[in-house]
Amino acid sequence: LHARAPGDGSPRLDGILPPLVTPFRPDGALDLVAFEANLEAYAAFDLEGYLVLGSNGEAPSLGEDEKLSLVAAARRGAGGRLLLVGAGLESTEATASLCRKVADLGANAVLVLTPHYYRSQMTVEVLRRHYERVADVSPVPVYLYTVPAFTGVPCPPELPGLLAPHPNVAGIKESSGDLALMGQILASTPERFAVACGSAPVLYPALCLGASAGILAVACCAPGPVARLFRAARSGEHEEARRLQAALLPLATAVTKKHGVAGLKLALTLSGFRGGEVRPPLCGVGVAARDELRTTLERAVAAAGS
Amino acid sequence: LHARAPGDGSPRLDGILPPLVTPFRPDGALDLVAFEANLEAYAAFDLEGYLVLGSNGEAPSLGEDEKLSLVAAARRGAGGRLLLVGAGLESTEATASLCRKVADLGANAVLVLTPHYYRSQMTVEVLRRHYERVADVSPVPVYLYTVPAFTGVPCPPELPGLLAPHPNVAGIKESSGDLALMGQILASTPERFAVACGSAPVLYPALCLGASAGILAVACCAPGPVARLFRAARSGEHEEARRLQAALLPLATAVTKKHGVAGLKLALTLSGFRGGEVRPPLCGVGVAARDELRTTLERAVAAAGS
Amino acid sequence: LHARAPGDGSPRLDGILPPLVTPFRPDGALDLVAFEANLEAYAAFDLEGYLVLGSNGEAPSLGEDEKLSLVAAARRGAGGRLLLVGAGLESTEATASLCRKVADLGANAVLVLTPHYYRSQMTVEVLRRHYERVADVSPVPVYLYTVPAFTGVPCPPELPGLLAPHPNVAGIKESSGDLALMGQILASTPERFAVACGSAPVLYPALCLGASAGILAVACCAPGPVARLFRAARSGEHEEARRLQAALLPLATAVTKKHGVAGLKLALTLSGFRGGEVRPPLCGVGVAARDELRTTLERAVAAAGS
Amino acid sequence: LHARAPGDGSPRLDGILPPLVTPFRPDGALDLVAFEANLEAYAAFDLEGYLVLGSNGEAPSLGEDEKLSLVAAARRGAGGRLLLVGAGLESTEATASLCRKVADLGANAVLVLTPHYYRSQMTVEVLRRHYERVADVSPVPVYLYTVPAFTGVPCPPELPGLLAPHPNVAGIKESSGDLALMGQILASTPERFAVACGSAPVLYPALCLGASAGILAVACCAPGPVARLFRAARSGEHEEARRLQAALLPLATAVTKKHGVAGLKLALTLSGFRGGEVRPPLCGVGVAARDELRTTLERAVAAAGS
Repeated sequence: LHARAPGDGSPRLDGILPPLVTPFRPDGALDLVAFEANLEAYAAFDLEGYLVLGSNGEAPSLGEDEKLSLVAAARRGAGGRLLLVGAGLESTEATASLCRKVADLGANAVLVLTPHYYRSQMTVEVLRRHYERVADVSPVPVYLYTVPAFTGVPCPPELPGLLAPHPNVAGIKESSGDLALMGQILASTPERFAVACGSAPVLYPALCLGASAGILAVACCAPGPVARLFRAARSGEHEEARRLQAALLPLATAVTKKHGVAGLKLALTLSGFRGGEVRPPLCGVGVAARDELRTTLERAVAAAGS
Repeated sequence: LHARAPGDGSPRLDGILPPLVTPFRPDGALDLVAFEANLEAYAAFDLEGYLVLGSNGEAPSLGEDEKLSLVAAARRGAGGRLLLVGAGLESTEATASLCRKVADLGANAVLVLTPHYYRSQMTVEVLRRHYERVADVSPVPVYLYTVPAFTGVPCPPELPGLLAPHPNVAGIKESSGDLALMGQILASTPERFAVACGSAPVLYPALCLGASAGILAVACCAPGPVARLFRAARSGEHEEARRLQAALLPLATAVTKKHGVAGLKLALTLSGFRGGEVRPPLCGVGVAARDELRTTLERAVAAAGS
Repeated sequence: LHARAPGDGSPRLDGILPPLVTPFRPDGALDLVAFEANLEAYAAFDLEGYLVLGSNGEAPSLGEDEKLSLVAAARRGAGGRLLLVGAGLESTEATASLCRKVADLGANAVLVLTPHYYRSQMTVEVLRRHYERVADVSPVPVYLYTVPAFTGVPCPPELPGLLAPHPNVAGIKESSGDLALMGQILASTPERFAVACGSAPVLYPALCLGASAGILAVACCAPGPVARLFRAARSGEHEEARRLQAALLPLATAVTKKHGVAGLKLALTLSGFRGGEVRPPLCGVGVAARDELRTTLERAVAAAGS
Repeated sequence: LHARAPGDGSPRLDGILPPLVTPFRPDGALDLVAFEANLEAYAAFDLEGYLVLGSNGEAPSLGEDEKLSLVAAARRGAGGRLLLVGAGLESTEATASLCRKVADLGANAVLVLTPHYYRSQMTVEVLRRHYERVADVSPVPVYLYTVPAFTGVPCPPELPGLLAPHPNVAGIKESSGDLALMGQILASTPERFAVACGSAPVLYPALCLGASAGILAVACCAPGPVARLFRAARSGEHEEARRLQAALLPLATAVTKKHGVAGLKLALTLSGFRGGEVRPPLCGVGVAARDELRTTLERAVAAAGS
């Protein structure tokens, strides 16, 4: 099995990218040391690159200064790997402005979340104009980012096809888990338009359909098994890919749907990475859930095997 | 690629089963002649069996007499193929009673829709008791049927695992299209528990995950391509399966989500089968949509190739 | 405060109508004796009439024979009061047929639930045709019945206005609790079109807006206070109406949203009426909830005062 | 009819407060001149005060500098009237910090939107902690703000009752339009806790239930009729209040649900106020909708009468 052939443009999404968490200290401040330590640890794994300032990075709770210092640190720590940076805000111009700033700091591409506060007004046409304007201005390629569990704004099936002709629109991270929608996106966009799966429970079937990448919370705490799943699917070892998908399923659900970012951060810490604290109003995982999550994590790692 | 090994029990679901439409005459009466003609035509295709009295069969608009005459006709027309019959009603005892009647008429298995009018009361425990009681009484194996687009009741992820130990529960038709859920069902049930995909846009990835069957409206009007998709996936021809999935996607969406049963019936008629009329309040497809559907159908058949 | 003036036609909805429960015996059979005893008890209260075969009457779990015997019993027990009968089914013709049968047995009007299984197809136009056909055929006036909590089909705001000109369409029972919608309905229909509130937590404000009746589960177990609320609102005693509304709120929520029909039946029994059993898959209220409901009931009655 | 008696604390919400729009110039910059002109025009109307930086003020698209200059301008233009300022952000500490800044600039109270990006994590407990922390820190009283149409986070029914004992929590703006919920809030909070209705189509019935204020988009373009509705309800002129409610309904729906902020801004301009442009991705109302809105506005004003 191989994904649709990527275009000639660098950067391309073709592999697994963990959406990095933003560790906070107990006093609420950014913990850049922990952030950098994670990047150093990830260097040993078969990863395509990193996403900074995504949903799992608690971007909505960060000030602009904090965002920029994270991007700078990520650029330093990412080595030659692809650095994708979340830059979506409610205002089109504010988004365009942030794209410029993160590109200046070394982002290879930007991931632009759908505006969503005025969700009933977010028609295909409104979103098309928003993305075209951002892509016109951004110094680096733009990826759409649709995640209705957070935004309430699903990807309109026709939007990716409308935006794909823009030379600076490079693809999408689609995180709804809806593979019928992913099929429609793949069918309506050219091969150079990368489709990244943002929902770990459906990574393997998404790769079967033609997705070329995975940007998944679970890859932060279990980068090895997720990368192996990707390679297995890519090399046609379907039984192995299916087995890894089943092994990762409970963990993938626990660190997103069930416990959210706090669960993911705890799982990082339990896995030897540095999760740090969450920023309020988010709160840490309770004691009972902590034990349950530890068990889920251990079982997933054991099931995934080496 | 192969599905999870089926158990020893007959009947098993392992292939494609069209959910037969119920053709009505212009005066609103059942058109059994058309119904039988369709069965005759389907005999030439690589199908595992048939579903009668499903959602696409307009079961909620049929009286019991009509239901029983359709089952009898289906038994006559199905030859040796598997006959699965929809028997779910709101009341547990009414459901059990209908299971007995259709088994008497030759149903090989029953498909039991979740009760749903009192949806907020449909807890896992309530559904478990309902299905256990029905399975205790039914002379033939019971398949769960979950289709939240119609019922508003999604499959509780833990329900199939709770019911699988019952010797007369044979599997599930899961029609939400949610492959994360399907993965959870597959992971929590033994191999003898058959998982049928009820959502055509995700048939190929569902088969990758381990589903063993497809019960899909589009198989009524395009049985050939759907059956080929199934065989391709089963024999590991992933590129071919993916290609067929993409070819069928617009048609699959048109005959379900977009135009509903009326669209499916029109597509049958346009394909040389006999769709007949829908029963009010459903109404036929308008003139503009008719042309659009014809085009969608022709393109799908052309794209699927021979 | 007075409701919009009713038209000259009998029957009109102008007061409180309890939606009668259908008591079942422990063996699952209809308990007509209990049903009749409740009617006898209700005769002492200030009620406009009764609804039989509504959602709280477990209509979806009843066979047609059972339905007809309930209507006959209700006619005998209702005295000269208005008898409204639920007659909505999925099929238009089946609905029309049931309307005829219940009218023959003495129903003064029929309450016709929106068809809902094929909910995405239930456009304004489809619903309009359905109701017009039923109203053409029904020997007694037709009331629309919209209850999205059960059906998933909200009342299209323009539907009542489209149907109101039909001489045999008499009004609507709107049970969403959405008073913006109720305002739109009242604004788009003439005075002869009765709007009944089907959501007890908003009865008083609905009467302020111009609703002329209430058909509410809580009126089955607390007919006295609900009737007093109605009279207080009608006679302009707003403080008293508001006080009664607040007193009834926890009970109204408990017997519908929280515990469903089983909760309502238990509350009837605790109030000296005869609730009987529910029909599976519904199941009785658990022990802990039983005590909680008893307390809620006692508090509501005490708060409502005499 | 009178609302629940307010407490002794200043400020209290007891009347109509328009949620001010933020006019932008065609080049996208803040138009403070237009903003101030509106305040000057509103001075002639029977209003309790103003809300700045609410949803209709496009707060999510404003930078902090812009927000602060709007607050300063509003303080200058509000005269002695109550100035309520939207200060909710995703992070608890960022919210607390903004509360301090706007209080320094003369806000009399802050309106704190529920955090919502991580909506599945926004449990009652998480929200309780968030509001308690903000109320601990804010120099001025805190009002909750729940608006699920924008946030996807409905007000947990028990939250206001849990927060009401805090001496610096003064009330809530509840904008769901769900009057059953409003009844629960009123029943679970003391009289000093102000409940403001944020949904114009249900203003009159909300006042009947005991709400003490209205913060409503339609009050920006039709302050006179909305204020008259408030006074009529307060003085027990129910027929007049009901009449005004019906007259305002189509306009209220048009400037929120239908056309959003762009519709509201156009309606302001058509009414002689200064709406200005919206900030992209929002876009202006199209030509056809423009005419329709003009008609809706004219009819509402004519129906409301003088």
